[in-house]
Amino acid sequence: MPAEEAVVDLLGALAYGELSAFDHLADDAGLAPTLSARAEMSEMAAVEFGHYRQLADRLAELGVDPETAMTPFVAALETYHSLTKPSTWLESVVKAYVGDGMAADFYREVSVFADETTGELIRSVLTDAGRAEFAVREVAAAIAEQPSVAGRLALWGRRLVGEAISQTQHVLADRDSLMRLLVEGTGDLTGVVALINRITDRHAERMVSLGLDS
Amino acid sequence: MPAEEAVVDLLGALAYGELSAFDHLADDAGLAPTLSARAEMSEMAAVEFGHYRQLADRLAELGVDPETAMTPFVAALETYHSLTKPSTWLESVVKAYVGDGMAADFYREVSVFADETTGELIRSVLTDAGRAEFAVREVAAAIAEQPSVAGRLALWGRRLVGEAISQTQHVLADRDSLMRLLVEGTGDLTGVVALINRITDRHAERMVSLGLDS
Repeated sequence: MPAEEAVVDLLGALAYGELSAFDHLADDAGLAPTLSARAEMSEMAAVEFGHYRQLADRLAELGVDPETAMTPFVAALETYHSLTKPSTWLESVVKAYVGDGMAADFYREVSVFADETTGELIRSVLTDAGRAEFAVREVAAAIAEQPSVAGRLALWGRRLVGEAISQTQHVLADRDSLMRLLVEGTGDLTGVVALINRITDRHAERMVSLGLDS
Repeated sequence: MPAEEAVVDLLGALAYGELSAFDHLADDAGLAPTLSARAEMSEMAAVEFGHYRQLADRLAELGVDPETAMTPFVAALETYHSLTKPSTWLESVVKAYVGDGMAADFYREVSVFADETTGELIRSVLTDAGRAEFAVREVAAAIAEQPSVAGRLALWGRRLVGEAISQTQHVLADRDSLMRLLVEGTGDLTGVVALINRITDRHAERMVSLGLDS
């Protein structure tokens, strides 16, 4: 049974992750080439907000102020977003699928170390309903039209991974409870390495599905 | 029975109104002084997106591409938003309540001239659940702390009305079907004047509830 502190940290980090994903997806929707593509990305933002609401409600149920729980994670997430601000529509599409997908894999892995109620809630807010199809369609169409975009987007994918890992390390270095949850959950450092390998493999699969080198 | 064209225009204008409200509320949430205030305004944005989805689905049911139906209204709505871009949190709060409230009153009035299904759908997406309480709380707290903001916010309220009226006139001058719906629905120009007076009265009530001169 993990310490309550780790659960609050996990819910707080994910809640702020959803709130900032809402914010940045809503912003990036402005890069869309058509009104219907803009509506699709806006819808992803609205879905993330719904997830935020569920996580904030759960924190409140546990007697924790959501704002207090989220505050320790604001800086790392905003740094990630400011270092990976898309400058084109395709960059925003790849970020929404690849960047958010990797974060989701991380939370999904860690969710099994939390109590069952928390774990189920976390897994329920991590479904990426339709995002893969959306990203594959947009990126495939762009590469078909102009093959040279593939190289630039592959680099962009690597940058997303690099910044995500860097910020995750900052958070773990700063939050003992989360580091303990991770190390105790996986059993030992070999377990941590295996977890990182699984996340990396799934990242590579996503890049392949987009037709990009990982 | 109004012409189908007017119904499509009405749904298209309101659908784009919701999509752009989503976009601007999500953006303005960034001005919030606290994470919980930011979450409250983000939630309003997510709710507007849900309304957009209902209207776009209805257009699709009628065999109309939502993008085609919205396109004629993009310029007027974006002009309104660019001329009323809040530069402070309080301006964004007043805009979300007073500006969106006036637009809602206009659509509510016109909805009774459309067929019953359309009218009911329009009225159902115009509920401003909790927005009044939110705005009154934020503005009252700010005025209590610094009474001089009341004058500036009253001017801001007048600017919102002015720009909203101006853009509505542009749209009506451009869309015969909507102008006909309005004039035939109200009966004659006396009816149009009465409708405008009702909207103005409700606007004044909103300003009073905020403690601002209208």
